[in-house]
Amino acid sequence: MSIEPVHLDEKLALFTDHWSPKTVGRMNDYEVKLVKVLGEFVWHQHDDTDELFLVLVGELTIDLPEGRSVVLGPRQVLTVPRGVQHRPRAAVETSVLLLEPTGVVNTGEAGGGLTARPQTL
Amino acid sequence: MSIEPVHLDEKLALFTDHWSPKTVGRMNDYEVKLVKVLGEFVWHQHDDTDELFLVLVGELTIDLPEGRSVVLGPRQVLTVPRGVQHRPRAAVETSVLLLEPTGVVNTGEAGGGLTARPQTL
Repeated sequence: MSIEPVHLDEKLALFTDHWSPKTVGRMNDYEVKLVKVLGEFVWHQHDDTDELFLVLVGELTIDLPEGRSVVLGPRQVLTVPRGVQHRPRAAVETSVLLLEPTGVVNTGEAGGGLTARPQTL
Repeated sequence: MSIEPVHLDEKLALFTDHWSPKTVGRMNDYEVKLVKVLGEFVWHQHDDTDELFLVLVGELTIDLPEGRSVVLGPRQVLTVPRGVQHRPRAAVETSVLLLEPTGVVNTGEAGGGLTARPQTL
């Protein structure tokens, strides 16, 4: 493993697409990903892992079961536990750091057209 | 597990001590910790795990083997691979997010007076 710093702002400047996470770092068997989001994602869940969201820029809403929603601004973190249905959405373009085990698919158990292929920046 | 957002700035306002990581979030068997640092830590290594540093405020230097050093500003990330000796230091007070498996000790294999007891905020 190379020991090189990763500047999140520089990585964010390298892409413009939405809902397509890019791997920018690794730690043990986890990946640090960056994603830009705008609009509404699909309801989904990850049966085998929690998922950590850290908002860098913008505002991310995560809809949860039973009509609950959590709104995250910059430097706010939320861990969605495994097996919990959730739907991310953002009214303005929002940049988010994700932490997930290597190989997690963005749409979890839901699949569908927004499923992204793995990409590394 | 409760599903509550964690505001890193609010957590950082809750403590002033240095080199004593506070657990503020969890994900699977990992902990998200915040630490404020100033001055020089001890050379140490973690034999069983990589360690991820994300600088939030300030500037963190991480000394590495063979006279190499990496300097991290805000929103820069470094993963120090397992088994690699490293020494964090900071000339100004610096706030850092750490990601580590649950139970990792801050001084790794080195131990000594700067070893911190686990704390959760």
